[in-house]
Amino acid sequence: MTAEETVTGVDAGGGRPVVPARGAQRPLGFAEVRVTGGFWAGLQATNADATLEHCESWMERLGWLANFDRVASGATGPDRPGWSFSDSEVYKLAEAAAWEYGRTDDPAADAMVRRLTARIAPAQDADGYLNTCYGHGGQAPRYSDLETGHELYNTGHLLQAAVARLRTTGADELVDVARRAADHVCAEFGPDGRQGICGHPEIEVGLAEFGRALGVGRYVEQARLFLDRRGRGTLRDVPFGRAYFQDDVPVRQATAFRGHAVRALYLSAAAVDVAVDLADDELLAAIARQWDHTVERRTYLTGGMGSRHQDEGFGEDWELPADRAYCETCAGVASVMVSWRLYLATGEVRYADLIERTLYNVVATSPRADGRAFFYANPLHQRTAGGGTDHDAVSPRAEGGTRAAWFDVSCCPTNVARTLASWQAYVASAGHRELTLLQYAPARIATTLDDGDVLAVDVTTAYPADGTVTIRVADAPAHAVALRLRVPSWAGGAVLSEGGRTRVVGPGFAVVDRPLVPGEEFRLVLPVAPRLTWPDRRVDAVRGCVAVERGPLVLCAESVDLPSGSLDDLIVDPSVPPVARADGAVVRAVTGDEIPLVPYHRWAERGPSAMRVWLPAR
Amino acid sequence: MTAEETVTGVDAGGGRPVVPARGAQRPLGFAEVRVTGGFWAGLQATNADATLEHCESWMERLGWLANFDRVASGATGPDRPGWSFSDSEVYKLAEAAAWEYGRTDDPAADAMVRRLTARIAPAQDADGYLNTCYGHGGQAPRYSDLETGHELYNTGHLLQAAVARLRTTGADELVDVARRAADHVCAEFGPDGRQGICGHPEIEVGLAEFGRALGVGRYVEQARLFLDRRGRGTLRDVPFGRAYFQDDVPVRQATAFRGHAVRALYLSAAAVDVAVDLADDELLAAIARQWDHTVERRTYLTGGMGSRHQDEGFGEDWELPADRAYCETCAGVASVMVSWRLYLATGEVRYADLIERTLYNVVATSPRADGRAFFYANPLHQRTAGGGTDHDAVSPRAEGGTRAAWFDVSCCPTNVARTLASWQAYVASAGHRELTLLQYAPARIATTLDDGDVLAVDVTTAYPADGTVTIRVADAPAHAVALRLRVPSWAGGAVLSEGGRTRVVGPGFAVVDRPLVPGEEFRLVLPVAPRLTWPDRRVDAVRGCVAVERGPLVLCAESVDLPSGSLDDLIVDPSVPPVARADGAVVRAVTGDEIPLVPYHRWAERGPSAMRVWLPAR
Repeated sequence: MTAEETVTGVDAGGGRPVVPARGAQRPLGFAEVRVTGGFWAGLQATNADATLEHCESWMERLGWLANFDRVASGATGPDRPGWSFSDSEVYKLAEAAAWEYGRTDDPAADAMVRRLTARIAPAQDADGYLNTCYGHGGQAPRYSDLETGHELYNTGHLLQAAVARLRTTGADELVDVARRAADHVCAEFGPDGRQGICGHPEIEVGLAEFGRALGVGRYVEQARLFLDRRGRGTLRDVPFGRAYFQDDVPVRQATAFRGHAVRALYLSAAAVDVAVDLADDELLAAIARQWDHTVERRTYLTGGMGSRHQDEGFGEDWELPADRAYCETCAGVASVMVSWRLYLATGEVRYADLIERTLYNVVATSPRADGRAFFYANPLHQRTAGGGTDHDAVSPRAEGGTRAAWFDVSCCPTNVARTLASWQAYVASAGHRELTLLQYAPARIATTLDDGDVLAVDVTTAYPADGTVTIRVADAPAHAVALRLRVPSWAGGAVLSEGGRTRVVGPGFAVVDRPLVPGEEFRLVLPVAPRLTWPDRRVDAVRGCVAVERGPLVLCAESVDLPSGSLDDLIVDPSVPPVARADGAVVRAVTGDEIPLVPYHRWAERGPSAMRVWLPAR
Repeated sequence: MTAEETVTGVDAGGGRPVVPARGAQRPLGFAEVRVTGGFWAGLQATNADATLEHCESWMERLGWLANFDRVASGATGPDRPGWSFSDSEVYKLAEAAAWEYGRTDDPAADAMVRRLTARIAPAQDADGYLNTCYGHGGQAPRYSDLETGHELYNTGHLLQAAVARLRTTGADELVDVARRAADHVCAEFGPDGRQGICGHPEIEVGLAEFGRALGVGRYVEQARLFLDRRGRGTLRDVPFGRAYFQDDVPVRQATAFRGHAVRALYLSAAAVDVAVDLADDELLAAIARQWDHTVERRTYLTGGMGSRHQDEGFGEDWELPADRAYCETCAGVASVMVSWRLYLATGEVRYADLIERTLYNVVATSPRADGRAFFYANPLHQRTAGGGTDHDAVSPRAEGGTRAAWFDVSCCPTNVARTLASWQAYVASAGHRELTLLQYAPARIATTLDDGDVLAVDVTTAYPADGTVTIRVADAPAHAVALRLRVPSWAGGAVLSEGGRTRVVGPGFAVVDRPLVPGEEFRLVLPVAPRLTWPDRRVDAVRGCVAVERGPLVLCAESVDLPSGSLDDLIVDPSVPPVARADGAVVRAVTGDEIPLVPYHRWAERGPSAMRVWLPAR
């Protein structure tokens, strides 16, 4: 332990993925937010019942788990199975299982964490280095390929898994392993160590949160060091250019998220963490500025980010092709990470708006209803129906159209799993004397305000199928507190009823600031009638098209719903308003036919289908 | 020499790149077509004066030529400079210089061929194998990576270089080297040899033409064998899928050109060669069908092919983004190769139409006016101005926007060079008793018809700047012959005058079939006034946009010509007809501004600029 190390104490509970040192809003933990039903509870249940085991069995089958055993036994070699980042999938699964155990106390989830830890821990070297692809038995030396080796990336995910364990169960062997790994990274890459960075950001966000969770300031400092080193061209140039891994321009000087989308977003999440904890307002403002630019000009209607398959990257401003949209599922997860951190730092509603859009239309789109197949890319237009899923095969491709059981590069399933297992984190936040509801789901939300008073509400809703959200006060102090309800930016004409009074509330936060009475109810009605959305005229790819949204859901047309079985000739008549039907809508084609639209997140669930979000309009 | 080998005699002259065994049309050689001025003569002169030397000096500087020296001296090793296909650049340059010598008798071009041959020849192994990347001094063994090793691809280009030498100068050391290499390939990959194919087609088209040029049927048979083996999944699967190298479906069963565009087109060119020479009408019909499908649905207005950067490949039908169009220069060259072979086989005008479109808008677009920098990709929309050219650097990227002096993968400069040096091949063709003019340029065209009569014409024109083409008969037999003049598909309202008579001639061939009198003149007037072109409604990427063409030239708007310096706000009023100005046109914006358009092939010649071919229209 170095002289400058500060240890402020272990944050051993709370179940919160992100706990900044300061900020406009305080995140709530699992004990404070219990989701009791609805859309997301269903996805969480499937995640718990199917996806976790599905991921573990594929990683066992492919030898990604056995890679740890072979390092431990000294039997590994240069020809190990899996990419250099396969270790991270094991860590992400451990993280998911840890959150799941925290959420439900399901002993099966706890057993999975222990089982994975028992495979991981013996592979750690005496000095804390832990990697199954480098540095053992004829493999390339440690840190010999910072550009593509993913060593620190893997470690970052190990630290995030340990954070989940720390914040749900408390310190255990996984946390000990992570601590040794983090110390190794600090020793190796510290101020006097290798002046390098990892080609794939992730260690930064892992170190920052692990430092927060353990109260070890040195880890946050190391994250800052990595961030400061970035953008100075220390990584080798690659055909895609150094923007691919954000080593072209220092973080605080960039104007937009750029290059590989997941890399850019993990890096930005870490930058917010460091900015907040180390009071670097300039850095925070830089990321907020980049977010604004990116969300205006480089983000799809679904919240998806990444326009290019070529480098899994952001394209240029307004380069948003529907058909070749990459919109990697992991970029959706990473976007939520960035927006959540910016929300906590600033309390600004636009971040929560984008989180909702991305959760419903990217994260929820990836897993098939049974939780055993996943979209990797999430295009907004599929010209030809994909093939069926081969349940027994690894997909070598990240194309859209068909959810695959597993991928050669299989980052998305475990990323979905850890996000769903910790989904309740995004439901609400608290301020000094206020509670803010951000995402609407049936839930009991109870927190202790800063002054020690307890405020508890029960939420009932069929959102997003229905726009009515009822909030019943369960417990409240006698003095005035603020209950703040997010009104999404699309929800013009929302109405809030309390007692006999009803008022229109505009997008932003609808606030009730007075003493609340246990038993009293508020009713927020968000207009979820289908609505037409026209694109910015600068988006060339969808000029002359219109989309239909319903509440937070982007809708789409599927060829399986058309009598012709084809979307090639579809032109809609936008003068006829779309009409709600089931959980989607119906629009009128210029031929007079009624065209059913379904939620985008459920497309290709009824077999291979062509699909369009943006519909050519007369 | 095997029992089945047929040797029909060396075709030692004529200067024709492609000489099929049969076909509807007979190609004319350099001695029969002398281009005397105009657009293409200018490009040919720059190619001769600047590009050939430019390519040689870069390959010397980068060690691609020295790779041959080191194999010859036994000093090579696994760490040689350049990609596995760098040998092919040397062969393509030798081919270009050989055609150039045939075209002009310039001793400098002949000296270049000899100089390159003197480097190449000593690197050949005793058994005919010739490759600087495999099989020597610690390199991977021969043919150990058929998927990506490019060994047979390199050899194919060697054979094409030898064809150029054979058909201009006659047999020499380069031809001897190629012959030994071809014999080696037949021995190694013959009916009883390795049952493999090369991941990049090219050996097929090389073997077919080398076999034709030498009269060695065995080489054509080996090309057939490679074609027959393809599409059966003998190559390892890759993330892009086996369609990437056309190993997914047998050649004759495919419905469209697909996968990597240059691979698909080189393969298709060879398929036509084999189909023609071995009287395989089913195969010929298959390629013609694939061409029709591809040109209708997978080809840009410029003639460019390849919609995706990711795999340098064709996308799906109607997937034709303007901004991310790849349209590799080499795919334009390869498309001309395929269309020329189909034209010779069938005599159908649509192939010559596409050749013209592609030559003016892809091939001519690549080289900068000074012949020392090149576009690799040819998008139809550049959102942000590219950087300037660094004349002293190798571009690692194939992005559009800036012509580069050289590339890490530098296939395009030498491909442009060999195409320009042999450009006159595409000007005209002959039939039994007819002469057909296909591309209009100032030229003397003289050929001996099948019955021994000489027919000669002199063409004068300022095409494409002006649409008037004057054809003066210089020599003709006393009996009737047919003079056929291609009327491009865009040239509605073309007029042909002979003597005092004038008649409108529709797209296709305008035919004069009567005895011709030396001294008489024909005047063909093609309407080259600017015209609006609307896209097929199924091309999502350019819905609501219009393009402007002028004769064979696609025009574009450049930001440097706009007062605002930006194309972001440009919307044109298509109710105002475009007006010719200089070599481009002027269109009216909805703001009332006049927007100048320039030929696409000259864009970015006046410094970095944003650019659009497809203009948003009110």
